Amino acid sequence: MIETRPVWKYNGGDPSRVNDDLAVEEPLEIRVRGRSVAVTMRTPGPVGVRDAQDAELATGFLLSEGLIRSADDIARIDPCARSGAGNIVNVFLVPGIDVEMDRLTRHVFASSSCGICGKATIESLHQHFEPVDSDVRISTNTLTFLSGKLRGAQVCFEKTGGLHAAALFDSAGTMIAVREDVGRHNAVDKLLGYALMQRMTPLDRHVLLVSGRASFEIVQKALAGGVPIVAAVSAPSSLAVELAGESGMTLVGFLRDGRMNVYCGEQRITAR
Amino acid sequence: MIETRPVWKYNGGDPSRVNDDLAVEEPLEIRVRGRSVAVTMRTPGPVGVRDAQDAELATGFLLSEGLIRSADDIARIDPCARSGAGNIVNVFLVPGIDVEMDRLTRHVFASSSCGICGKATIESLHQHFEPVDSDVRISTNTLTFLSGKLRGAQVCFEKTGGLHAAALFDSAGTMIAVREDVGRHNAVDKLLGYALMQRMTPLDRHVLLVSGRASFEIVQKALAGGVPIVAAVSAPSSLAVELAGESGMTLVGFLRDGRMNVYCGEQRITAR
Repeated sequence: MIETRPVWKYNGGDPSRVNDDLAVEEPLEIRVRGRSVAVTMRTPGPVGVRDAQDAELATGFLLSEGLIRSADDIARIDPCARSGAGNIVNVFLVPGIDVEMDRLTRHVFASSSCGICGKATIESLHQHFEPVDSDVRISTNTLTFLSGKLRGAQVCFEKTGGLHAAALFDSAGTMIAVREDVGRHNAVDKLLGYALMQRMTPLDRHVLLVSGRASFEIVQKALAGGVPIVAAVSAPSSLAVELAGESGMTLVGFLRDGRMNVYCGEQRITAR
Repeated sequence: MIETRPVWKYNGGDPSRVNDDLAVEEPLEIRVRGRSVAVTMRTPGPVGVRDAQDAELATGFLLSEGLIRSADDIARIDPCARSGAGNIVNVFLVPGIDVEMDRLTRHVFASSSCGICGKATIESLHQHFEPVDSDVRISTNTLTFLSGKLRGAQVCFEKTGGLHAAALFDSAGTMIAVREDVGRHNAVDKLLGYALMQRMTPLDRHVLLVSGRASFEIVQKALAGGVPIVAAVSAPSSLAVELAGESGMTLVGFLRDGRMNVYCGEQRITAR
């Protein structure tokens, strides 16, 4: 469930090269009677119980969606290995269960007969979105002030403790816009929508900062907006780092208290 | 963006009745050329810019999905008021834009010609899932120890800072199972799947604890599993409280450091 990667750690002075543990994030395709109904980004279980946890995840998803009520509704679950492909779990229901496939089916992408994986998902994304090409630079000093600026602009977070925030900065550290939402993806979508309507896209001279963690989805949205530098107050996932790296982006994590980890694209970060 | 509700605050001794600020969560249906493509749970913008932020959210979503590239691709955006219904934003694209509706369309529910709202979403859910009927009780003392137990069981969180956790407890505070994932909904789905496969559902004598916030989606999943008591280490959203209240559930927030807020279903919480 953990992947270790070398990162640049900034804590005043010169950055040091250290290993950092990342939460693994990988797609899982859930199929019902052989038909794809959902792709979710999940953390695979530890070795030995990975198949079991994928089966649990698929089962819980079908329960939450109101499709099944008890274990008797399930005839068989083929884990990834037995489905003959990676990251695909196939749930076979007993004949009596009526499946409204159209109601259930979610946005499914990056799937193929040989299974899905982070790499295939990224390749599929790159068919839609060009990697970011930007020579913008930002100083460590400017970066370290961004999380304080974001916090100061989170008018609703202080009151509720329940809102994510995302903000767009220029490379001098000036805040262009900030949006809050219960969904972190919504906060980023609001920012991107604002930028597009202001004809600022591609945002190739900008920094996107999110108040929480950086998942694959956040980096994907930044890529769609052409943002070269993505920073998060908390941890990134493994697939977020991979997507940022393969998209020519700079990814900064744990940006708080004057410190940060830089996961890729460190050439955009200057000493002063 | 904030809704104030009376809650019971526990901080040792007798609980006190205080007002608490909640982040507002409400569904927004995004339509493209009049056809529904997604429902997202979002925080509406402040009065005066609510329509503008809904338009931003829809625009950013379409940019992220690769459907549009620039403001020129949009012919017109009808905000909720002009769509003649609440919580529906309608994006009209210029004729040249080809929309792969099937690829785009996400799980859409609880929509009707008169718009969607939290109340309609909850009513629609209740057609699938019965409200919880359970006379289980748990003491404040037992509850306050749960977050420490969860933290102790989060083996991967300590290393990565990037994993959500969810755990299932019995009413004596014994941990039945714990799951971690980058997605909080996945952690809960894994738990529910485990319980269903163990033939433990409905989980009407149990407590579900999540490491972060309690959104509508988390309470929805608990309802699907028949869980009477949902607790979160951090804040609940407004719609999470509403759904729990209308489903006969107990919702506890900010369960940490020996304190908690109880948003509804306080009859299940006993003094010792």
